[in-house]
Amino acid sequence: MAKIAVLGFGVVGSGTVELFYKNKNKIVEKAGTDLDIKYILDIRDFPGSPFEGKFTKDINDILNDDEVTLVAEVMGGVNPAFDFVKSCLERGKSVVSSNKELVAKKGAELLKTAKEHNCNFLFEASTGGAIPIIRPLHQCLAANDITAVAGILNGTTNFILTKMINENMPFAEALSTAQKLGYAEKDPTADVEGHDACRKICILSSLVFGKHVYPDWVHCEGISSITAEDAQYAENWGGAVKLIGSVKRTADGKILPIVRPAFVCGANQLSSVNDVFNGIMVYGDAIDQVMFYGRGAGKFPTASAIVADLIDAAKMKGTSISQVWEDSKDNSFIADYKEDVLPFYVRVQGVSKDKAKEVFGEVEFLTRNNCPADEIAFITPEIKEKDFDEKLAQLGGKVLGTIRVLNLES
Amino acid sequence: MAKIAVLGFGVVGSGTVELFYKNKNKIVEKAGTDLDIKYILDIRDFPGSPFEGKFTKDINDILNDDEVTLVAEVMGGVNPAFDFVKSCLERGKSVVSSNKELVAKKGAELLKTAKEHNCNFLFEASTGGAIPIIRPLHQCLAANDITAVAGILNGTTNFILTKMINENMPFAEALSTAQKLGYAEKDPTADVEGHDACRKICILSSLVFGKHVYPDWVHCEGISSITAEDAQYAENWGGAVKLIGSVKRTADGKILPIVRPAFVCGANQLSSVNDVFNGIMVYGDAIDQVMFYGRGAGKFPTASAIVADLIDAAKMKGTSISQVWEDSKDNSFIADYKEDVLPFYVRVQGVSKDKAKEVFGEVEFLTRNNCPADEIAFITPEIKEKDFDEKLAQLGGKVLGTIRVLNLES
Repeated sequence: MAKIAVLGFGVVGSGTVELFYKNKNKIVEKAGTDLDIKYILDIRDFPGSPFEGKFTKDINDILNDDEVTLVAEVMGGVNPAFDFVKSCLERGKSVVSSNKELVAKKGAELLKTAKEHNCNFLFEASTGGAIPIIRPLHQCLAANDITAVAGILNGTTNFILTKMINENMPFAEALSTAQKLGYAEKDPTADVEGHDACRKICILSSLVFGKHVYPDWVHCEGISSITAEDAQYAENWGGAVKLIGSVKRTADGKILPIVRPAFVCGANQLSSVNDVFNGIMVYGDAIDQVMFYGRGAGKFPTASAIVADLIDAAKMKGTSISQVWEDSKDNSFIADYKEDVLPFYVRVQGVSKDKAKEVFGEVEFLTRNNCPADEIAFITPEIKEKDFDEKLAQLGGKVLGTIRVLNLES
Repeated sequence: MAKIAVLGFGVVGSGTVELFYKNKNKIVEKAGTDLDIKYILDIRDFPGSPFEGKFTKDINDILNDDEVTLVAEVMGGVNPAFDFVKSCLERGKSVVSSNKELVAKKGAELLKTAKEHNCNFLFEASTGGAIPIIRPLHQCLAANDITAVAGILNGTTNFILTKMINENMPFAEALSTAQKLGYAEKDPTADVEGHDACRKICILSSLVFGKHVYPDWVHCEGISSITAEDAQYAENWGGAVKLIGSVKRTADGKILPIVRPAFVCGANQLSSVNDVFNGIMVYGDAIDQVMFYGRGAGKFPTASAIVADLIDAAKMKGTSISQVWEDSKDNSFIADYKEDVLPFYVRVQGVSKDKAKEVFGEVEFLTRNNCPADEIAFITPEIKEKDFDEKLAQLGGKVLGTIRVLNLES
């Protein structure tokens, strides 16, 4: 028998409580022990809620109740979530969390606290929403030397890019459509500028390579400068523009985590992940490549991962699993993205094809419908990013856009 | 410390041993205990093998050695694998297996034996090769009421169908290409006629719905009657022909497992799983849909799953996990596929479009390049399969092909 406390009764919190009671019989059977939700922490009142008797505004009710051994933190943000989670772990209560900001910024510390107190800090919901990725990486792919992970980690931006490709919609209109459908927030910065994807690639990088990667250390570009024309060129090239968060091991033994829009070729399964769906590709020496696909956000998809973690935490009572990474004192193990070698897409006005070849060598020219006579677009050969910057300055003309081509080789 | 025995030194067996020693440090760290391979069972001799000291031809060496607590069964076939596995489990040795035939035919009994002897029988490698599916279904999606699973479960047939679609290659030529590349066996029956996919959907059905589904109970059709013309019609329709193994819960509370070629619409992620890759889509009440994608077979992809299961079995020493399904006395819980309601693709010669509409109602006509004047092809509205058979007889003309359209609703 274990009692659960749910911290936060927003979208994911209410989804967690509803899903738990909807499938309770199955959940209890899987956990192998009786489970019930005893507390829901929220500063708001919910008069008339079917869960009315469970609400509290005081975290101490939960901290001081020894019956509560499992906690679901679904509040979001670092404060006060961090203090609450840490206090729970210090009392030996296992915590599961959907809070990517918390895990990305404080994961190493919370994992250490959990280990010290012989309980667990689990966060399947923080990275892939409904998509199982943390546990498969940690368990199912454990025999592999994983060399890279690359994912479409944000549903909002993928929805916007899909609209831009399929309906030739400009960015601003696609964003406003996403807002109308509830896929994007009023202030869409965290999604559109890649901060959300950045937190997720930090979590995946830390887990795969064993050292905490802080968001500040990761070069991050969003999709606000991508145009419908870029999307069209990518499609005619046989691929798609996607916002990709990725991490790879580099030849010098460092790792390179980065978030940026990228041309993804049609042969890569990520190119066909559309709308609000996410996809995460994992590369390893034995598996070659494996992809996980599904809804990366939303009330019940996220609740699915929270409840699965609660079941696991209940089953693992009294043992702390080895899913741990070290804290990092500095970022000396993070490679400089300017040293990476990759092809680039370039769209430029007032430059001849010959000039493009003179500067970049054997480029591949792309086409689009209704292309103005003075516009060209092309893919460069592989080139070191900092050399690319120099060559681009030599190209002249008016550069209308440049986008990296996804390249996970090092 | 745990000693491992590997039963069988064929492709997967040698891959398992090689992968184990390649990534041994990482594997031992993940397992949390020292591991080593003590025996390799094979009736053949391998003079000069770097593992020469480990070979034995006598299963009793393994059965009687109390140091051996983990066994990897990678022999294939039911005999003598079944006796070997059962004997190991009866001595409390956990067994991991890539043997889909064994799991599909004897899974319930072996799981029961494992539980009785407080050890584990794990088989991640049997269904998805490198693709994590058994553990995600059992653990990560545990909070869901799973309503259906549908997958491209056989790489050989998917390679053949991809060739037929992309290169307009006839079936026989695509098969012979697959054989030349080593993707298909000399006798390709098990792959081409769907028997391999059938075993896998039996395992998935048993796991998801909790009762053993025997291969004999599952309606199974292969791809040998699919033509390049069918593939072209499917592509022009916006989708693809795929060999799909699926299971869904029906309205009357039964389940319907089936293996057959199907028209898969372009919006379904399975339609873009190509070449030798497999994809498994899972539908649940909280997740909506999640797909797992990767290499479903091959030396190292399969070894990856075997070694991951060995790590898990080492970690779970002394506890038997709850991944168990009941044996089934009869097939009364299996729905009759003739009662299923779905659309059909029909290709027919010497029948007018008006006649097609008269017989089937509002059909959707399809096109292909160089279509003879007396050929039509169309998709019917949803219709009960046994009614479809009757109507097809009324249609007249020469039926050149019929293919079910994938429909996981009930």
